[in-house]
Amino acid sequence: MRITVLAGGVGAARFLRGLKSAVPEAQITVIGNTGDDITLFGLRVCPDLDTVMYTLGGGINEDQGWGRAGETFSVREELAAYGASPAWFTLGDRDFATHILRSKLLAEGRPLSAVTEELCRRWQPGVRLLPMSDDPVETHAEIQGSERALVHFQEWWVRLHAEVPALAITAVGAEDAAPGPGVLDAIAAADFVLFPPSNPVVSIGTILSVPGIREAVAARTVVGVSPIIGGAPVRGMADACLTAIGVETSASAVAAHYGSGLISGWLVDDQDKAAADDPALGGIVVRALPLYMRDLATTTAIARAAVDLAKELA
Amino acid sequence: MRITVLAGGVGAARFLRGLKSAVPEAQITVIGNTGDDITLFGLRVCPDLDTVMYTLGGGINEDQGWGRAGETFSVREELAAYGASPAWFTLGDRDFATHILRSKLLAEGRPLSAVTEELCRRWQPGVRLLPMSDDPVETHAEIQGSERALVHFQEWWVRLHAEVPALAITAVGAEDAAPGPGVLDAIAAADFVLFPPSNPVVSIGTILSVPGIREAVAARTVVGVSPIIGGAPVRGMADACLTAIGVETSASAVAAHYGSGLISGWLVDDQDKAAADDPALGGIVVRALPLYMRDLATTTAIARAAVDLAKELA
Repeated sequence: MRITVLAGGVGAARFLRGLKSAVPEAQITVIGNTGDDITLFGLRVCPDLDTVMYTLGGGINEDQGWGRAGETFSVREELAAYGASPAWFTLGDRDFATHILRSKLLAEGRPLSAVTEELCRRWQPGVRLLPMSDDPVETHAEIQGSERALVHFQEWWVRLHAEVPALAITAVGAEDAAPGPGVLDAIAAADFVLFPPSNPVVSIGTILSVPGIREAVAARTVVGVSPIIGGAPVRGMADACLTAIGVETSASAVAAHYGSGLISGWLVDDQDKAAADDPALGGIVVRALPLYMRDLATTTAIARAAVDLAKELA
Repeated sequence: MRITVLAGGVGAARFLRGLKSAVPEAQITVIGNTGDDITLFGLRVCPDLDTVMYTLGGGINEDQGWGRAGETFSVREELAAYGASPAWFTLGDRDFATHILRSKLLAEGRPLSAVTEELCRRWQPGVRLLPMSDDPVETHAEIQGSERALVHFQEWWVRLHAEVPALAITAVGAEDAAPGPGVLDAIAAADFVLFPPSNPVVSIGTILSVPGIREAVAARTVVGVSPIIGGAPVRGMADACLTAIGVETSASAVAAHYGSGLISGWLVDDQDKAAADDPALGGIVVRALPLYMRDLATTTAIARAAVDLAKELA
């Protein structure tokens, strides 16, 4: 069985752990969002790719869901002592090593896809992890401060905690980006495509904004897992992103936003089972089940339900 | 009083601490060797500049004489886990922060002199620290392995422990390098110039190899402190460097190598006082005193003797 998954960060990484457990025999290709990538202290940081890599490779900080286990923060403290900015993005010493090596390899002219493969050689995540594009795409939020300004997504999300409303969210560079090597092939060759409970705007949405990817995905059977339970994001601040694009924060609204032209099946939490009767979701098969990824067992059950529905619909 | 000092790493840094203590009112300019600089993991490392900066700024690892106090090694361990090379050069986490920031500022197009000034803003070393040049100069050793090869000085020194004899030592890029901003002025404006007990070949020698610096220094009163005591380097493997350029490892031979055209005064250890009668040192005033820099008091006494001799000769 070949499964291709469009992935953001923490939610996707945990879902993928469940998916590997549910269908250990499957060949899983993960198309990772790179719109959150940012250059900090001259080093290229790819938060979503690393979260997937560390989680599946056994190096993640389980409590916070991102960053490395057993971290120390000497480099960060030293940079702060130098007055180097930005101080609002926390990188641990172990994590810094990844960014140092990535930046070195990129500076040598290797594309992000090759660099990611090189990093994964250590982590052995058990999936093929492909950046959505080798071209730089950076998600920006348009915010209203003293004047309207575009700020990098990470600045809005991490520094401002998305407390300032975003008026728009833009994947800068997306229109000129090409899908990374193997991305379109992995979608075309998949038995089906899954959307984990990732942010529909700045994770899945950004991946779909790379020309060619949306069309390739739409041609396949797609099953998504709602990142919204009971009208709130399970994690993070997806509501702020949905508001920015004029979509209500509900399991139904997210499915309607994707639309029946893109997704065929949609998993919602039991408390959102009314979505099955939502006329806006015509053409999308909705299935309700417990959707909180509390541990590996519940996550495996969710992944299995997604696979089962996809097999039914394929 | 204005004093300009040509400096290598550990020996120079300790001598400078004594000099600041001996003549706290003096304006000291340090011209730092950058021939040991090396790019590791894509980051620019300047061992001699940093040793001076950390030592005078209170951040040095006192026991080893280089690197930061209280170091941890997470970044290094992680890079090793990735299989990233080279593994033979030890960089601590705190030290990495310096190299990350330096590399970022260099990548933004700032010259090394400006970057060094920026780093020193934190450390406040109490001297003006000028790289010998903003142009890249890298000392290489020519060694005979299975074939003759040029290797970076650090590789010969740190990885091979200088156990393979160097057939020659070359400052690659020196002939095309220009003295850094302020370097020639600092030499011209000095009441006198001091050579600390630094390596005569790969520290002082490399600085002097930048076109214009030797001539500027030779026009001033110069007093040097012998890095050789009793026929052996006080620290490091200067003997291997001297052998490579055909100079005997003795206090006399080093002074003769500099020559009376360059230095006017030469401090040797009491056990080398016979140098005062060496006919090869005609024109150089030799003075003997205890020359091991055991602690701040002894180092201050050595620095004071150098200053006193220079004032006599100026």
